[in-house]
Amino acid sequence: MKPRCKNLEWRFMRPLNKKILSQFHRIQDIIDNNDRFLISTHINPDGDAISSVLVFYALLQYKKKTVQICIQDVVPEKFNFLSGVEAIQKAEEMDDLFNPEALVILDSADLNRLGCVKDRIKKNHLVINIDHHASNQRFGNVNVVDDSESSAVEIVYQLTRYMKMPTTPEVATLVYTGIICDTGSFRFPNTSERSLEVCAEMVKSGAVPEYIAEKIYYRMSRQTIKGLASALATVEFHYEGRVCCMYLSYEILKEAEPVDTEGFVDYLMAVDETEVEFFMLEKSPGCFRVSLRSKNTLDVNGVARKFGGGGHVRAAGCTINGNVEEVKFRLLVELGVYLDGK
Amino acid sequence: MKPRCKNLEWRFMRPLNKKILSQFHRIQDIIDNNDRFLISTHINPDGDAISSVLVFYALLQYKKKTVQICIQDVVPEKFNFLSGVEAIQKAEEMDDLFNPEALVILDSADLNRLGCVKDRIKKNHLVINIDHHASNQRFGNVNVVDDSESSAVEIVYQLTRYMKMPTTPEVATLVYTGIICDTGSFRFPNTSERSLEVCAEMVKSGAVPEYIAEKIYYRMSRQTIKGLASALATVEFHYEGRVCCMYLSYEILKEAEPVDTEGFVDYLMAVDETEVEFFMLEKSPGCFRVSLRSKNTLDVNGVARKFGGGGHVRAAGCTINGNVEEVKFRLLVELGVYLDGK
Repeated sequence: MKPRCKNLEWRFMRPLNKKILSQFHRIQDIIDNNDRFLISTHINPDGDAISSVLVFYALLQYKKKTVQICIQDVVPEKFNFLSGVEAIQKAEEMDDLFNPEALVILDSADLNRLGCVKDRIKKNHLVINIDHHASNQRFGNVNVVDDSESSAVEIVYQLTRYMKMPTTPEVATLVYTGIICDTGSFRFPNTSERSLEVCAEMVKSGAVPEYIAEKIYYRMSRQTIKGLASALATVEFHYEGRVCCMYLSYEILKEAEPVDTEGFVDYLMAVDETEVEFFMLEKSPGCFRVSLRSKNTLDVNGVARKFGGGGHVRAAGCTINGNVEEVKFRLLVELGVYLDGK
Repeated sequence: MKPRCKNLEWRFMRPLNKKILSQFHRIQDIIDNNDRFLISTHINPDGDAISSVLVFYALLQYKKKTVQICIQDVVPEKFNFLSGVEAIQKAEEMDDLFNPEALVILDSADLNRLGCVKDRIKKNHLVINIDHHASNQRFGNVNVVDDSESSAVEIVYQLTRYMKMPTTPEVATLVYTGIICDTGSFRFPNTSERSLEVCAEMVKSGAVPEYIAEKIYYRMSRQTIKGLASALATVEFHYEGRVCCMYLSYEILKEAEPVDTEGFVDYLMAVDETEVEFFMLEKSPGCFRVSLRSKNTLDVNGVARKFGGGGHVRAAGCTINGNVEEVKFRLLVELGVYLDGK
């Protein structure tokens, strides 16, 4: 059989535009000319944040640099299978004596997204900023921001190719994980030809889709599935089925502990013909953390802002006090304004 | 930017082994030398079956042939967005006067899988058999059986490339749909580098991942989500959490009608550390349709066979009579034998 392209290295290296190439060149310079690096990413880190950090860590280790990784929060348990994850330190437990020359900030639109890690940045630090959010504030000395990429890890991966780091099975697993987490296993609108292509390359390099899917998706604890059942039992439809909602009361939350409610609202996304979904989690008596989702153009960020929250057009959150009926009523009234506006 | 490969057509055409090439050549001969074709696939058609049929239908229409499609069952509603789906006829409603010269049987390991369509096959018919099941019986005059492919539609797609049919956005949507259905959106063990690569090609040709995901995955009716909530409320763990099960009683099933319980058992797959999952659906009073899943090597096909059912090592089903406690007890006893054997 003929190889599909003669030059495998070339095939794996995406043709980059000049601007990104020049930024990569500057990053290479910073890496070549410095020794001590600190890597960080945003609070509540997701799969893309964690895998971006760990791929960059692998790159710096390959270049024989002294590296520390520091984030505000702990890494969610489901990412414990990722190579290098044990090197990620919680900011408050970190050694203050480490004095990095350069900082690498990944998947974060602005420095506030770093949480308490922001306080460690000093004026003399060189800052490398790599992100895929259109709203990125370009806070770095070098900024590689490409919102056409599904995930930050796709950009970091291209940098590793540019810097000629071999893609080990461990790195391939990281890149694959970051992409499926940010694209919802290729179901979200950011799923591109390129993200599928990179994942195909990662499988060639040793990532095992089934193994990764098991680690990422088959992780619900007994308590959590019972909590999900309790929440789904409260599902209601409003506005002729355009809005779908559910809640989990503090009473049940406390009884069933520990319940991981992350992603509960996404179960409502499976319901057909709804436009907006929300999940009300009573985190403490009378205090509801609300997660909102929009399947189309309805701006749930705008709705969340009305209650002092925020997020994205299609995924946002806020906190509202009251009993469940009051909180639901306030949300439905606000959503009604948006639904009428369509 | 340089194109990634000069010859796009060549890039899209997988290097095929000689055996498959020669079979493709024979299929091309049959298509060139006959005019009337009947296409069919297996009972309870899934996304791969439907999309294989429709891609082959597009190919035969492109070659200006007279074609009918006939299957035993109706096409599940969620596939109604697929191009050409209106041409699929239910066997019992089909015009008996149509006298095909050749039959195209897709995604079916043997002729019994066709259900009542099997009775329409005559000795003088030429039979083209394309499948990806290792157990395929090679019942055709031409057999293209490749169990290294994730799906039958991947093989049919290669045939369309071989026969130089352009990949329209409609065809790309069909191929993409078939692959995500058979790989569980790239989560099942059959997810290969090649399936990801073909899907990347399909996006390039006009398939829209987000649109297809919405049609395939965001399809749960209000009744179904209420049925799911009722089923999840019955979740139990046995054998120290190695087995997880739930049921839906006839009483609730009837009350909530119509509930589509297809895939309910897969929700249990999300639970960590379990090895086997089963879902008992009381289809009529005292009669349970049982769906079994195995995450690893435990052979649920063997368990199902003990009750007169069957399937695959990792997904099987059977029917058991009794009340819910009796049925559960009998399954748990049988599973215990297998768990001990590990």
